[in-house]
Amino acid sequence: MRESFEVRATDAGGRIGELSVPRAGHTLETPALLPVINPNMQTITPRELSSTFGAEALITNAYIIHSTDSLRDRSLEEGLHEMLDFPGVIMTDSGSFQLSEYGEISVTTEEILEFQRDIGSDIGTPVDIPTPPDVGRKRAETELEITQQRLEIAAAAPTGEMLVSAPVQGSTHLKLRERAGRHAAATSLDVFPVGAVVPLMNEYRYDDVVDVVGAAKRGLGTDCPVHLFGAGHPMMFALAVAMGCDLFDSAAYALYARDDRYLTVSGTRHLEELEYLPCSCPVCTEYTPDELRALGETEREKNLAAHNLFVSFEEIRRIKGAIRDGNLLELVDQRARSHPTMLDGFRALLDHADQLERTDPASKGTFFYTSHESARRPEVRRHHQRLARLSVPDRVFLTEGSASSTDAFDVSWRVIPPFGPFPRALSQTYPVSAEVPERTDDAARQAAATGIERLVALNPDSEFTFGHAGWSNSALKTVPDRVELWDLTARTGGD
Amino acid sequence: MRESFEVRATDAGGRIGELSVPRAGHTLETPALLPVINPNMQTITPRELSSTFGAEALITNAYIIHSTDSLRDRSLEEGLHEMLDFPGVIMTDSGSFQLSEYGEISVTTEEILEFQRDIGSDIGTPVDIPTPPDVGRKRAETELEITQQRLEIAAAAPTGEMLVSAPVQGSTHLKLRERAGRHAAATSLDVFPVGAVVPLMNEYRYDDVVDVVGAAKRGLGTDCPVHLFGAGHPMMFALAVAMGCDLFDSAAYALYARDDRYLTVSGTRHLEELEYLPCSCPVCTEYTPDELRALGETEREKNLAAHNLFVSFEEIRRIKGAIRDGNLLELVDQRARSHPTMLDGFRALLDHADQLERTDPASKGTFFYTSHESARRPEVRRHHQRLARLSVPDRVFLTEGSASSTDAFDVSWRVIPPFGPFPRALSQTYPVSAEVPERTDDAARQAAATGIERLVALNPDSEFTFGHAGWSNSALKTVPDRVELWDLTARTGGD
Repeated sequence: MRESFEVRATDAGGRIGELSVPRAGHTLETPALLPVINPNMQTITPRELSSTFGAEALITNAYIIHSTDSLRDRSLEEGLHEMLDFPGVIMTDSGSFQLSEYGEISVTTEEILEFQRDIGSDIGTPVDIPTPPDVGRKRAETELEITQQRLEIAAAAPTGEMLVSAPVQGSTHLKLRERAGRHAAATSLDVFPVGAVVPLMNEYRYDDVVDVVGAAKRGLGTDCPVHLFGAGHPMMFALAVAMGCDLFDSAAYALYARDDRYLTVSGTRHLEELEYLPCSCPVCTEYTPDELRALGETEREKNLAAHNLFVSFEEIRRIKGAIRDGNLLELVDQRARSHPTMLDGFRALLDHADQLERTDPASKGTFFYTSHESARRPEVRRHHQRLARLSVPDRVFLTEGSASSTDAFDVSWRVIPPFGPFPRALSQTYPVSAEVPERTDDAARQAAATGIERLVALNPDSEFTFGHAGWSNSALKTVPDRVELWDLTARTGGD
Repeated sequence: MRESFEVRATDAGGRIGELSVPRAGHTLETPALLPVINPNMQTITPRELSSTFGAEALITNAYIIHSTDSLRDRSLEEGLHEMLDFPGVIMTDSGSFQLSEYGEISVTTEEILEFQRDIGSDIGTPVDIPTPPDVGRKRAETELEITQQRLEIAAAAPTGEMLVSAPVQGSTHLKLRERAGRHAAATSLDVFPVGAVVPLMNEYRYDDVVDVVGAAKRGLGTDCPVHLFGAGHPMMFALAVAMGCDLFDSAAYALYARDDRYLTVSGTRHLEELEYLPCSCPVCTEYTPDELRALGETEREKNLAAHNLFVSFEEIRRIKGAIRDGNLLELVDQRARSHPTMLDGFRALLDHADQLERTDPASKGTFFYTSHESARRPEVRRHHQRLARLSVPDRVFLTEGSASSTDAFDVSWRVIPPFGPFPRALSQTYPVSAEVPERTDDAARQAAATGIERLVALNPDSEFTFGHAGWSNSALKTVPDRVELWDLTARTGGD
């Protein structure tokens, strides 16, 4: 366990955690969203972030403050919290973004960490190298080595009580991301941003984001608080949390507002095209779209930024509730329908079902089968693994219908897609107590068939008969040949 | 076209319409939600419904007013609008619900219509017989005959400018629902409630609701405004609108609040179990769950009712926006992930793809493939139908990859799951300009294969070669045998 981070509840790869921030005297509940404050231009003031939106933390840029004489002097004199007038946790970035944009910056990791400490930042950041996606392996590896040296410098620096983040780089090379995660976790640093994913998000490559985060997490393990750097669109929060991200920063709320763009959990809209406001936040209950459009530029931008923040914090609360209730994957399933690339992201997430399974609780509320993708959830996989623990008699009737009343079988087990077979006595246990649709699908049946296949393989000396409710050949083909098949719909005349 | 209703925009079976209500001097935009006001007990006042929630219409019960001496006298004296203090459209119910609950009521259709007219109702209702689901055909038919007589009495009654509704009954007998719809549409009546679906909704039988509405709509045709009587949960509004419903009434907002239940677009939560409020409405931004729980009973009920209304009207606005943008089915797809029974409802909706196709616009924004269910959308079916209009040369290369550069073919057509084949020149046209996931699925491929099958059947004299990106046998089996198959992934070494 890392000293400053404690996991309170988990669901799939997602968790509710507590990050102790000693310098702020504050414990930050995660998942948390840190709005980005540009020290030179504030659409919403830090004070409003706290009082109106309930923001417990924000992030601002120490490099910009350091490079601007007036801000540098003031921040050193007053301290960051007083200068920004914010009572919560302040995290600071180091200029790495400027480095990636402009090719060079004028401070070292030692200098910027010292500056961050001196102005009273609660969570500081070294100058890492944000290697963009899709670069050659050699460049990614060379730059990662520099980042790793910077982390070691940071770990040795006299940063006092300030927490320090340890960015995980490696571009789209998954082995490098994993190695970077392992290295970062082995330092004494505190918060672990997965860096340089913004270009992936700008290109809607949510499946690649999932793979990159998944690789970093394999290296980091489960006890590091993970920050998805630059991810500020509420559409993807649930997906990223399910993969194991704990912290987000949003510049999007303000940047999009400047451009008259309106965030929703299923995408971005331009104010110009909105005929109705699909939201009940204080902005959207006060104004109609025409009234918003008629506002002066500053007022309009401020109101759009406020809406964008309301909807972002709302989604964070919804996600935290979903983790508590054990239905985070159902929420991700809903969000996957926002855009084909979000569906790609969800499908990529389920490629990591084994990894998610390790932190998924053994029992939750009720498993809802809500899509073909549900058949690939970690709970289904775990049920198949656990079949090995069950003792199985010689002659077994597996059935989607009633138990056999004859003595031709020693036992009748139930079969429910997508889980497959289980003893009747387990019917009320998680996950097979699931709610499933009446109109099932081949994905569910094939997953159930995989369960049958596994049970049969585990018990070579038992004989199996499977009574199915009119399955197609494509679902049945996974059922081993030695299982005798009965079509229950044929036997009962289609009832 | 019915005199009082005009359809302004359509998407699948959903539409934005305008219902002219002459007595109120008001044109009501649909889909519209009419909150139910109990004349004896108002959690939220009618005046607040209008000013705070923007409700343009409400529904109240003329039978209760008629049966309560003080209310009867006052309503006859002051008129309903003054008595309730509501400036918009007031619809009144007739006591049919009380009839179904208690077995008898003390007024006739003539009496209650006269009373509704006299108190100034804008939309009145005759006393129909709400036959519950699953009753025998004979009872359903007998009761439907009585309902139909009542509609004819209503049509002949001196109701003046008051619009009059014509409930469509028939229990779960789809032929009866269709016949009832045809009969109702042939009267001079104005608004068409699909009645007695509440028991189906109470049992989460959303697929049966879809089938019942679908049958009623086949009888009613597309120009009747349809009211889904008793449907007040925002989770199902999008599904019902996609099937062709225009009006909803919500008693749920108040009834659920009385029971400390909190509505969301993906289900109902009990206040007791909420740790976070997944909403940004004025109630949910003012209170934490603990603060709500700490309120006195009356205040708590009022705040929960307000939240429930905010989220319900928000969903109606979201649906109207989706119709304007042509992405209503994407919204239904999201809502289908709320509960397995909602998935059943969506799957049932797509069983009616032909019926939906008739009102679906030929061109919309961009088709998003967001689930296996997307493969069954009406746009896919229409594309397959339209293949008949295309002229096809002798030797055709259908390809998921590049066009053929050889002269072995007269033409290269693109294949994109779920649509199947189309000429390259159509690439930018709806719906094949779709956004589809990189990680496609067998449902999409099978739909594309059905397109190929149809094209080949339409052009018996042409030769076809299909270059596919590594399709499975289950997807390929629909492609006719006479199509030569090339696996493009094998040919290019897996790139």
